Amino acid sequence: MGEHLININTERLLKNIYALGQIGRDKDDQLVRLAASEADRMGRDTVVKWFREAGLEVAIDRVGNIFGIWNERAIHTDKDPLIIGSHIDTVINAGIYDGCYGVLAGLEVIRTLQESDFTPKRPIVVAAFTNEEGVRYAPDMMGSLVYVGGMKVADALETVGIDGTVFGEELENIGYAGEKEPGFLRPHAYVELHIEQGPVLECTGDTIGAVENLQGISWQKIVVEGTANHAGTTPMDMRQDAGQIATRIIAFLYDYVMKNSSTVATVGSIEFAPNIINVIPARATFTVDLRDPDEEILQDTEAALSQFLKNIAKKENVDIDTEQLARFKPVEFSQNIVRKIESAASARDLKYRRMTSGAGHDAQMMARICPTAMIFVPSKDGISHNPAEYTTEKDLAAGANVLLDVVKQISQE
Amino acid sequence: MGEHLININTERLLKNIYALGQIGRDKDDQLVRLAASEADRMGRDTVVKWFREAGLEVAIDRVGNIFGIWNERAIHTDKDPLIIGSHIDTVINAGIYDGCYGVLAGLEVIRTLQESDFTPKRPIVVAAFTNEEGVRYAPDMMGSLVYVGGMKVADALETVGIDGTVFGEELENIGYAGEKEPGFLRPHAYVELHIEQGPVLECTGDTIGAVENLQGISWQKIVVEGTANHAGTTPMDMRQDAGQIATRIIAFLYDYVMKNSSTVATVGSIEFAPNIINVIPARATFTVDLRDPDEEILQDTEAALSQFLKNIAKKENVDIDTEQLARFKPVEFSQNIVRKIESAASARDLKYRRMTSGAGHDAQMMARICPTAMIFVPSKDGISHNPAEYTTEKDLAAGANVLLDVVKQISQE
Repeated sequence: MGEHLININTERLLKNIYALGQIGRDKDDQLVRLAASEADRMGRDTVVKWFREAGLEVAIDRVGNIFGIWNERAIHTDKDPLIIGSHIDTVINAGIYDGCYGVLAGLEVIRTLQESDFTPKRPIVVAAFTNEEGVRYAPDMMGSLVYVGGMKVADALETVGIDGTVFGEELENIGYAGEKEPGFLRPHAYVELHIEQGPVLECTGDTIGAVENLQGISWQKIVVEGTANHAGTTPMDMRQDAGQIATRIIAFLYDYVMKNSSTVATVGSIEFAPNIINVIPARATFTVDLRDPDEEILQDTEAALSQFLKNIAKKENVDIDTEQLARFKPVEFSQNIVRKIESAASARDLKYRRMTSGAGHDAQMMARICPTAMIFVPSKDGISHNPAEYTTEKDLAAGANVLLDVVKQISQE
Repeated sequence: MGEHLININTERLLKNIYALGQIGRDKDDQLVRLAASEADRMGRDTVVKWFREAGLEVAIDRVGNIFGIWNERAIHTDKDPLIIGSHIDTVINAGIYDGCYGVLAGLEVIRTLQESDFTPKRPIVVAAFTNEEGVRYAPDMMGSLVYVGGMKVADALETVGIDGTVFGEELENIGYAGEKEPGFLRPHAYVELHIEQGPVLECTGDTIGAVENLQGISWQKIVVEGTANHAGTTPMDMRQDAGQIATRIIAFLYDYVMKNSSTVATVGSIEFAPNIINVIPARATFTVDLRDPDEEILQDTEAALSQFLKNIAKKENVDIDTEQLARFKPVEFSQNIVRKIESAASARDLKYRRMTSGAGHDAQMMARICPTAMIFVPSKDGISHNPAEYTTEKDLAAGANVLLDVVKQISQE
């Protein structure tokens, strides 16, 4: 780094995290700040107030993305801004760190830089993107998707939620239908600090994840059509047992990815019909979730599964139907920023590792328009989307300090 | 056989089968004659009327088993009777052959013997056992189970049905709570003619199954307790995926029985929790139905599965619980009667094979108290418990004629 390290104000960061975590509690004390809800409004109002208290210029775009722009001391205000941030909407019965940590650490970084009389060469902006979780309105990461031009503003605003509401109307109701056109700030770079939401850092004993890519996702539903028959009177070699065939497909898939591939595979959901103890299943329906940071490997895994389905369908003389439910290509982050994260962690004597994000984040959208990377800190037991979500105060501070160092560097470019 | 072959009256047998098959139709024209229901009463009244028309003495025992006793021409009425029969209760939306065929063919055999002036040396009795299906009141084969002393009369009568009714009260209501003590007729032998309810005879091209044994049954429920986690952020080697482990258990079981064993295995029912596409299953619950005609082999299969469960639970560091839901030992039928069935089929130039019953039948209960065997005829596509249940008229006649020949022989002993 070659210069004296400054540190964020850990106490102030934590105070904000805990305060925001109390906003939007339901009658059972569950944290529920679904996008564009009244609870979301309260969270937004609080964050905007904090942004303004820090002297940031607050700008809201047409899908409600909030930007706190620190511009006053920048020498070249015409330069593209460095954006740091995440989201503050939550799932139902959420933890307090997912998303909020990245936004509030972004604010804390700016305040620390202000207090240290640091002068950036470009604006630094803290962003809170709308509806990252996608619980109330699909798709998830909606705010950042619209921001980078991946979805039309009008289409987003017309989205009907699980509660029958229209997103645009609700956004208007809570007062966050802004006037800025999404994309109005063209970022020089985007950096997102986030809890890992997985067990890797905790298991490896690292404090900092330098996230260099984000997995591609392939979701499909597979239906095996066999023949229902009596479990006692039908010899094994005269069966078209949809359940047995499904089992062989799933076992093949797990064997394949564990022996041949970096792909992670999950069969999270399964159903037999008629689902009776002494009737051979006529139909087995199950889902397959495949993820890989490498598109080629992901395609290889899909192809291996597809070939196995063809072979077993022919061998067992059954119909097997597949339906693609979702498909996203992997996202490569900026190696340049990843190396800066590693250097910053190293300079602070923090154990770190390069890693892949298994979950989706606003960063994957921002990577379409600018150099992007993410910083992860450990999640206890890998738990997220749950009140048990937890990251130690020490790790929260460490992550924010690494963000601080990276922001200092990039903002001087 | 060494004597002239007589034949049953096929037309009369079929007429009775079709007539009984129309009794107990619900508003959707589905055949539903659940035990001790009003529909069952109508079926019983018809069969009893036919028994009486054939000059049989009708006796009803305390659990409603019906016996049509042909005694008039027997030289030695003090000799133990030969009992032939089956049941006339049905499942919901049943076929017309299951059970009814055995009872009505028994009646037809007696009428044919009467008409041919045949004089048996012992009484011949046609029986219709109560509640073989067990749909309304558990357990199945209740009437024959009580008859052979396997269940107390009082316990049977107190059974509460799926509709909240008490079996004994309902039996009283339909007028079939008889006075005879179950077991009052001590059978010399029992022979049951039945549709196969499986695909074997159709596949092998045989008309007659000489059923020499009945499979033992082992039912268990297996619960794998893993840990729910994010399908994207949790590396394959850091998972306790209950679904994956269940899949490996099921794949092992199928491999084991297909490579090492005569056992038939079925996993008919499965459930994951939370059963969400992108969440690693925390719990997998599934049933295992194992059947084998050899108790030792059945125990070996159970032991192999049990050992595998222990090993994988230890290796994957998860809890696996098992619960036995049912366990019946295999039943060996009388080789003497089986040989008589083979000889009878052979004398009529009917293709036949020795076989195992994969389903439960009243014969398995009767085998506890007397020499017993069964005769099977083909079931189209192996289908039963379904309106599509079908056996050709030719095969129905063939089976009844084989029963006739066997009855002639045994009744002369």
